Amino acid sequence: MAVYTDVSDEALRAFLQEYELGELLSYKGIAEGVENSNFYLHTSTGHYILTLYEKRVSEADLPFFIKLMGHLARAGLACPQPVRNRAGTALGRLCGRPAAIVTFLEGVSLSRPNAEHCRALGAALAGLHAAGRDFPMVRENNLSVGAWRPLFAQAEAQADTVAPGLAARTRADLDILEGAWPKDLPGGVIHADLFTDNVFFIGDAVSGLIDFYFACTDAFAYDLAISLNAWCFDADGTFHRDKAGAMLAGYDAVRTLEPAEIAAIPVLARGAAMRFMLTRLVDWLNVPPGALVQPKDPLEYDRRLAFHRTAADARDYGWEG
Amino acid sequence: MAVYTDVSDEALRAFLQEYELGELLSYKGIAEGVENSNFYLHTSTGHYILTLYEKRVSEADLPFFIKLMGHLARAGLACPQPVRNRAGTALGRLCGRPAAIVTFLEGVSLSRPNAEHCRALGAALAGLHAAGRDFPMVRENNLSVGAWRPLFAQAEAQADTVAPGLAARTRADLDILEGAWPKDLPGGVIHADLFTDNVFFIGDAVSGLIDFYFACTDAFAYDLAISLNAWCFDADGTFHRDKAGAMLAGYDAVRTLEPAEIAAIPVLARGAAMRFMLTRLVDWLNVPPGALVQPKDPLEYDRRLAFHRTAADARDYGWEG
Repeated sequence: MAVYTDVSDEALRAFLQEYELGELLSYKGIAEGVENSNFYLHTSTGHYILTLYEKRVSEADLPFFIKLMGHLARAGLACPQPVRNRAGTALGRLCGRPAAIVTFLEGVSLSRPNAEHCRALGAALAGLHAAGRDFPMVRENNLSVGAWRPLFAQAEAQADTVAPGLAARTRADLDILEGAWPKDLPGGVIHADLFTDNVFFIGDAVSGLIDFYFACTDAFAYDLAISLNAWCFDADGTFHRDKAGAMLAGYDAVRTLEPAEIAAIPVLARGAAMRFMLTRLVDWLNVPPGALVQPKDPLEYDRRLAFHRTAADARDYGWEG
Repeated sequence: MAVYTDVSDEALRAFLQEYELGELLSYKGIAEGVENSNFYLHTSTGHYILTLYEKRVSEADLPFFIKLMGHLARAGLACPQPVRNRAGTALGRLCGRPAAIVTFLEGVSLSRPNAEHCRALGAALAGLHAAGRDFPMVRENNLSVGAWRPLFAQAEAQADTVAPGLAARTRADLDILEGAWPKDLPGGVIHADLFTDNVFFIGDAVSGLIDFYFACTDAFAYDLAISLNAWCFDADGTFHRDKAGAMLAGYDAVRTLEPAEIAAIPVLARGAAMRFMLTRLVDWLNVPPGALVQPKDPLEYDRRLAFHRTAADARDYGWEG
């Protein structure tokens, strides 16, 4: 968690002159997100988040992310709504970086969600998929099954220094996943990174979803599989069947899962775990000197993979439909 | 700027149960202050700052700082007001650290204050001194003239690696300052660190003073000399006589400076520059590996000292009283 770019009051005031947000009352760099610089912003018209997009987000993708947030917010989803400037665009430049202002969302992310929180998350995710249904833009998922073998190639030679046998079991998993990866599941816009820190709650109700900077076009059930991995396991790999069952049921109550999606849950969950294990592994082996951000442990997802290898069908994930 | 301690929602909720602050709506780690971990905190009763005191602030000093902020706020100064918990104390523990909640102050610190901002700062500083006049607690200034020789001893051998001749001119300055340091000037509670980032403005008016964690009992005019150094020079050492004159006049308009204080301005300004040059020099030579915070350049204050050596009396600082 870090703020990568200092923004002077002068630079911010000049930027705000492009907007109709009234008088600047306060702003603070906030430790949220690992990819961008974010600021809490208070003006006489309200509370906002100002984001400066740092190098890890492709500038070419920003219109997709910004327009998506606007679309979802207009469709009633509780997500950050981009604020347009006087020129009618929500994407500007500040301190040499692409920058956007979005509305501030109240809520707190949960460090230890329970099964009822997982049920609420499932319902919110189905709401996101519904809200995005008529979004016209497409962004390929560049971290899906076709990307995993090249990612692994960057780490394969050193993988066994992280955990004995990691290289061999990853190779075997990739063979299986590439052969079994489902096609033609219902799809559209997915969040693709709906971890607990990207979901706000007030009390026990979901109050907002944030951080759409991995959003892309893919199978809805794969999004569910990502959140299932993120919310229903402990760091030591312990699986909580009650949480997963509640998440699947919460989702199904808002958007009925098709038989092909239910059948695909084990392979999707295994693939989702592989995707995060691999990106974490590459980051783990490539920490730049002086890095401000601690890399995340790839073995948390290696341990999830061990569970997924044992799962036969959706019932092993608590599905009771 | 960094957040040193992660605070989980569970830990925060447990902490907030000791307070009457209603429902937790949001909190974000903020990049403010280099010594502590700070969080923007929003509950159903208002906006606050939560501070966790990290190792560099002495726990024994915390009651002084907290009670001082309460005293100053009650006396009408725009400064953070500590919030008492149900037990009647404003100092608790969170994540193994001393912690306090204070009211949120609106305003923006200025990266390039002009002379009128300096006049407003002078007036606000005099207001702080007036508000603290009947504060009963005492905290010795442990970074005053008696501390400089021992500080320098930690850096003397390496000083010339930072700038040629730095050791010799610092030794000479210390001889002069120790001989000429004024005693018996009017004093009381001083802020002792009123740099631009600790003063908030809305428009051109001071809206708040923050960060009282160097506050102590010392000469009022020394506090003015610290701000004069911090606000009226560029990083390259260029002195802005108009800004300094406005600051002195702004102060004098609220609390009349005595002749002894006016006469002491050159030596106080030189001493204030020495104090910050020395602490920065020691930090510069002792950056821990993996430090999150970039050390500040001691030579900015070495360059200010070059100006102070040329100053004969308060008129050289723009005093026109």
